[in-house]
Amino acid sequence: MKRESNKVLTTSVAKLLRRNATAQLQKIISRTHPADLAYTFSSLTPEQRQSFFRVIEHTDRERAAEVLSELEPGILVRFLEEVEDRKLVDILEVMPPDDTADTLDLVRDEERRDKIVAMMRTESQAETESLLAFDPESAGGLMSTDYFALEQNTTAQEALEQLQKEAGEAEVVFYLYVVSEHDTLVGVASLRELVRAERNRPLKEFMIPDVIRVRVDTDQEEVARLIARYNLVALPVVDDNNRLVGIVTVDDIIDVIRSEATEDMLLMAGAGQEDVSRYNSVLFSFRTRWPWLFPSFLGGILAMLVVFDYSHALREMIPLAAFIPVMIGMAGNIGTQSSAIVTRGLSLGKYDFVELGRVVLKELVVGTLLGVSYGVLVAAIAGTLFWQQDTYDSASPLIFAGTIAASLLAAMSVAATLGSVVPILFKKMNLDPATASGPLVITAIDVLGVWIFLAIAVLMLGL
Amino acid sequence: MKRESNKVLTTSVAKLLRRNATAQLQKIISRTHPADLAYTFSSLTPEQRQSFFRVIEHTDRERAAEVLSELEPGILVRFLEEVEDRKLVDILEVMPPDDTADTLDLVRDEERRDKIVAMMRTESQAETESLLAFDPESAGGLMSTDYFALEQNTTAQEALEQLQKEAGEAEVVFYLYVVSEHDTLVGVASLRELVRAERNRPLKEFMIPDVIRVRVDTDQEEVARLIARYNLVALPVVDDNNRLVGIVTVDDIIDVIRSEATEDMLLMAGAGQEDVSRYNSVLFSFRTRWPWLFPSFLGGILAMLVVFDYSHALREMIPLAAFIPVMIGMAGNIGTQSSAIVTRGLSLGKYDFVELGRVVLKELVVGTLLGVSYGVLVAAIAGTLFWQQDTYDSASPLIFAGTIAASLLAAMSVAATLGSVVPILFKKMNLDPATASGPLVITAIDVLGVWIFLAIAVLMLGL
Repeated sequence: MKRESNKVLTTSVAKLLRRNATAQLQKIISRTHPADLAYTFSSLTPEQRQSFFRVIEHTDRERAAEVLSELEPGILVRFLEEVEDRKLVDILEVMPPDDTADTLDLVRDEERRDKIVAMMRTESQAETESLLAFDPESAGGLMSTDYFALEQNTTAQEALEQLQKEAGEAEVVFYLYVVSEHDTLVGVASLRELVRAERNRPLKEFMIPDVIRVRVDTDQEEVARLIARYNLVALPVVDDNNRLVGIVTVDDIIDVIRSEATEDMLLMAGAGQEDVSRYNSVLFSFRTRWPWLFPSFLGGILAMLVVFDYSHALREMIPLAAFIPVMIGMAGNIGTQSSAIVTRGLSLGKYDFVELGRVVLKELVVGTLLGVSYGVLVAAIAGTLFWQQDTYDSASPLIFAGTIAASLLAAMSVAATLGSVVPILFKKMNLDPATASGPLVITAIDVLGVWIFLAIAVLMLGL
Repeated sequence: MKRESNKVLTTSVAKLLRRNATAQLQKIISRTHPADLAYTFSSLTPEQRQSFFRVIEHTDRERAAEVLSELEPGILVRFLEEVEDRKLVDILEVMPPDDTADTLDLVRDEERRDKIVAMMRTESQAETESLLAFDPESAGGLMSTDYFALEQNTTAQEALEQLQKEAGEAEVVFYLYVVSEHDTLVGVASLRELVRAERNRPLKEFMIPDVIRVRVDTDQEEVARLIARYNLVALPVVDDNNRLVGIVTVDDIIDVIRSEATEDMLLMAGAGQEDVSRYNSVLFSFRTRWPWLFPSFLGGILAMLVVFDYSHALREMIPLAAFIPVMIGMAGNIGTQSSAIVTRGLSLGKYDFVELGRVVLKELVVGTLLGVSYGVLVAAIAGTLFWQQDTYDSASPLIFAGTIAASLLAAMSVAATLGSVVPILFKKMNLDPATASGPLVITAIDVLGVWIFLAIAVLMLGL
């Protein structure tokens, strides 16, 4: 388990692979954590990966299974395509059943997947098939079937003996689940409580009877929320009849939290369901991203119509056109700030709904202050730049500068308010507020920014 | 521990508080999880919070301490301002020391904080003071001093007896840490391994000797990375002399991962260090957000100069101005998509550096495809809208439409490429790639979009 610096590790592995120095590779393999071995894969070429994995498998098949479970999905997908079926089956059979199912989920060719499952031993086959049936984003899809459960009349002494006998080391067990004679979940005890209990007391006397649990079809976000809120290390999963069927452990939940955060960020960036792995095809990325650009496109067309509508004013005063970008940019950016802050606050549960009005009011005030400050700045620049030029046609530079400042202020305070209101409305309508911080709202804000600018300009400059 | 639906719970608590139904409140308090009680606070008014907390404290002071530890920082800050010093000290003294330090970190008035620490019992005072000395974002700031450690010559039997005697239930213990006679960390055993070991074997014979550990000053991001990579439930913290001084548990790390994700999202949205809680003052928000808008402002001014530079072209062909927003919008959005995908991919460690060139190449290809598709669309709209109008002055509608399409294609493929290159460069320069997805790069892309558009227009239309 000695941890090498990852860079050193990767360099040595690559070098030893080139030299075919199997004995030295085996030495590294046996003293390196599977997670670190898996990390090395990301810096090897596909061919090196195959030969390194052959050495790992030859050294220790269980270790090979652990490394496979720790690989990045993107790397794993490609790796699986190149490995032989027979070899894969051998490795899948030494994995914990949930990892087997997760790995098989990544075999994209369904025919091949069925063929591989059919090649497995009957008992692992049945277990894998039942796990494959669950939605991968549900508790059933996340759970491990490798838990420790005993009947409620078992004594502490018997439980300890049972624990000592149990051979499987596959998953780390922290809680002892207690079930009735019909396998329904009736309680939980931590190993610590088990050790501390009087030896002849039955489990039902010292277990905690009211166990926080989820059903197989509970969404992974809810599972993550419960584990985070109640500081759990594992959460039991029950079926429709309240029978214990598995556990979800906190390490799986960390991955869920990270991927949900990624989802939020990509939603906010208007990249939708695009995966962050580079293993998607260009066509997939194109199809996924196209619709997310459409609101922005539509907004651009709307803004075009607005500008076109005011073309008589622009014709009279060309410099107005030069300020369109700054209006769009500042309105869009302050809107993004406000909606990101409110969205993230909502998703972390920072706000109490009673006081949401204050959140919006604060954004309005902050937006106005920022608008005043940047308005003064833009007025100074507009005034200075155009002071000597006769581009104003009809208006004095002072009025021109004042018009720009007033428009920027109006656009920014409206944008900040909208940016905070929309995620709240989305949340109230049970839509994902992260969508609201995305291109849809920002584009609406852009169009509004241009319109406010030109309307105020026409009004103030009498065009 | 029975979990009420949160809404039902909150409504009942509010109702019972209005009726002063203390007995019923106490019943609810004793059967509700502290995390759920804490959650209720977010929907109560500040006055209700005070009186509810009084009832909780009266029912069970330890429960009150747990509720306080579970409160949202934003709510806790305000709550702390209103609670009496003496009462706070009583509660702080029944908390685990790390929670005490975390709570005191939120007492913003330093004089008051010192006064409170001075009022504590001598032993908790020393412990709290030493914890307060660590950076809250380091392993020392996160750690709990409530771990279970034994000397390496202790036998399994003695260890089990020790565990049975230990009274403190404050923190859930999962690992047994093994130390030398000089208190240096030499190994770790899970409780499961302890239970399964032969009773007369000393710890040093069955412990895992190479323990993954961090130093007190290790940054919380690194702590989170280790816990996530090695699927740990707790990670030991050592001082400069390798002496065990505390543990960081996975539930604290979940909070870190969430807040680091928030930080990334706010960086990407250009909201910088703005906190998502609404408890910051307007002035604080103003000061934090002002600098983040500055690049956008500067970009707007630059774009203004670009547009102004082309005002002869605009004067000849006013409709060109109408397409400025769509150019900015589409370039900015595709740039945001590309940089968000690459940034998130980098921060999750999805890419191997060897293949980063492919990532950029893919963005360029996807950007070009999207540019072609939206280019055709905008050309069709431009052609249709202006077909009958004599706004073209010199150019034919076909050439005008072609110009718009070509500019959009150029702006979008350049934006996608830049959006993916910059986060990678930032990462290579050891800067946070999330900053690259923020306003700085997007603004540069906006300006570039306007410039590409006008330059191509002048060239193609011969203005």
